[in-house]
Amino acid sequence: MVDNATLLAIDWGTSSLRGALLGADGAVLDERASSRGILTVEPGGFPAVFEAEFGDWHARAPLTLISGMAGSKQGWVEAPYCACPAGAADIAGTLAWIAPGRIAIVPGLTCEHDGAPDVMRGEEVQIFGTLDLLGLADGRFVLPGTHSKWADVQDGRVRGFATAMTGEFYALLRKHSILARTLPADEAAFDAAAFDDAVRGALAARGLLGSAFTVRTLALFERLGAAALESRLSGLVIGEELRAQGDLRGQDVIVIGSAGLTARYERALAIAGARARPMHAQATWRGLWNVARSLPAR
Amino acid sequence: MVDNATLLAIDWGTSSLRGALLGADGAVLDERASSRGILTVEPGGFPAVFEAEFGDWHARAPLTLISGMAGSKQGWVEAPYCACPAGAADIAGTLAWIAPGRIAIVPGLTCEHDGAPDVMRGEEVQIFGTLDLLGLADGRFVLPGTHSKWADVQDGRVRGFATAMTGEFYALLRKHSILARTLPADEAAFDAAAFDDAVRGALAARGLLGSAFTVRTLALFERLGAAALESRLSGLVIGEELRAQGDLRGQDVIVIGSAGLTARYERALAIAGARARPMHAQATWRGLWNVARSLPAR
Repeated sequence: MVDNATLLAIDWGTSSLRGALLGADGAVLDERASSRGILTVEPGGFPAVFEAEFGDWHARAPLTLISGMAGSKQGWVEAPYCACPAGAADIAGTLAWIAPGRIAIVPGLTCEHDGAPDVMRGEEVQIFGTLDLLGLADGRFVLPGTHSKWADVQDGRVRGFATAMTGEFYALLRKHSILARTLPADEAAFDAAAFDDAVRGALAARGLLGSAFTVRTLALFERLGAAALESRLSGLVIGEELRAQGDLRGQDVIVIGSAGLTARYERALAIAGARARPMHAQATWRGLWNVARSLPAR
Repeated sequence: MVDNATLLAIDWGTSSLRGALLGADGAVLDERASSRGILTVEPGGFPAVFEAEFGDWHARAPLTLISGMAGSKQGWVEAPYCACPAGAADIAGTLAWIAPGRIAIVPGLTCEHDGAPDVMRGEEVQIFGTLDLLGLADGRFVLPGTHSKWADVQDGRVRGFATAMTGEFYALLRKHSILARTLPADEAAFDAAAFDDAVRGALAARGLLGSAFTVRTLALFERLGAAALESRLSGLVIGEELRAQGDLRGQDVIVIGSAGLTARYERALAIAGARARPMHAQATWRGLWNVARSLPAR
């Protein structure tokens, strides 16, 4: 074991806790994951969980940076959102220090659009990491998920972003709506044709309130099987998300997400005429390393 | 008691069962309601429930017409959908007879748009009744509800229609989504300003996947109170429904629904620049009476 650790990078989310020990060049020396997401931690219990899960690594690294929901109201310490435009250096300047110079929580980002604020917490670190890994300073990003984030980056800073509650709408419709009655109880195999057709339909449709009902009517008239209906619903919500971004033809979009979801967004973006660039590598550690590098010399 | 009944009109829905005894001119002689919606009736149990609830009136009326979900797969007898364009006479020609010449179930309507079928069951009868009560042959209708229906009528026939799952989306977001955490547990008083602002926002927005998230972020930054958030969510989903109908400015729209919902749609339609004409009278009995009148003489 060589003692060249420079950073303990931690992604403390709602339902998971992951960490990595990084070397001088940002290389990942070791990784570790546990199920102690913030929902499992009682108020005041964060220091003890941190010590139990990462005490040994913390002793070896001069600095620990934590991103994710650990910085929310329900987390360890609330880290107020950093206003856009914001890059790794802006983030580094607004850390919420737990142990000055030793442990800090990375703030999320906020921006204003359409008369209301928008927020992200954790995705910005993945964006900064991806910029570094791909050697880019500009780009349009989508981070698909429960709450997908679309972000525009210029000169290494997030200029603005928008949330789409795509994954959550899918889950609500899949589990709790009238559509659940005609969908298979268990997850079905992916049906590419039904998915693609639904994406095309959603891109041409006026909105999800209407298009979602086709999952029911196509079942009613037995024009689509139960397994295909599930892929149709997935295509409808993802297609609706893309429709709401405006004309995507000819655009490059960097997709950061799980392998399965990224593959679906690649398909959907291609149908919308965009060029999708999937980012499969782990970008969070690299992003936190970039924030650490942006700190003033100590 | 005078024996001048001409029709026993029944609206047998998912969760309620209502009936009216009509006179020679379609006047309502008497009305009755029970909680025996089709969900409470076991397979094969429909004749017994009908006899128990309406046997006396059935004996007095030469004809019984039943609309609503009693004609669905889970109902008494499945009444296949009648294809648009369809008016009361088309409906009268495609009744599903239970006792020939005596008891029939009124079919719903179907049409095709955006590559998929659409359906309504019960709303068409309210539309026919409203046309008769208002002395109209043409009009644009909205019937707000769990699944709102927008219908275009020409020469007394529904030319086409579209469903919006507005009420169901509202309930899903209100009860099961992340937004439920910041909304009050019980129904809050209506906040007109928050509702109107949300309708304006939704009409200018790109879709509900994005706009719905503002219910969370406005709460997060304490820019809107819990009660106002509920009215905002209502305005966002209704505004999204209107947005999807295209430019409504200068249009007349007849609104058929419950008093509370109709009032909200009137507000929202006015914001969208349309002229709303609320239909408060009971249109179902009149609609079934129109279907009965359209039957060939027996």
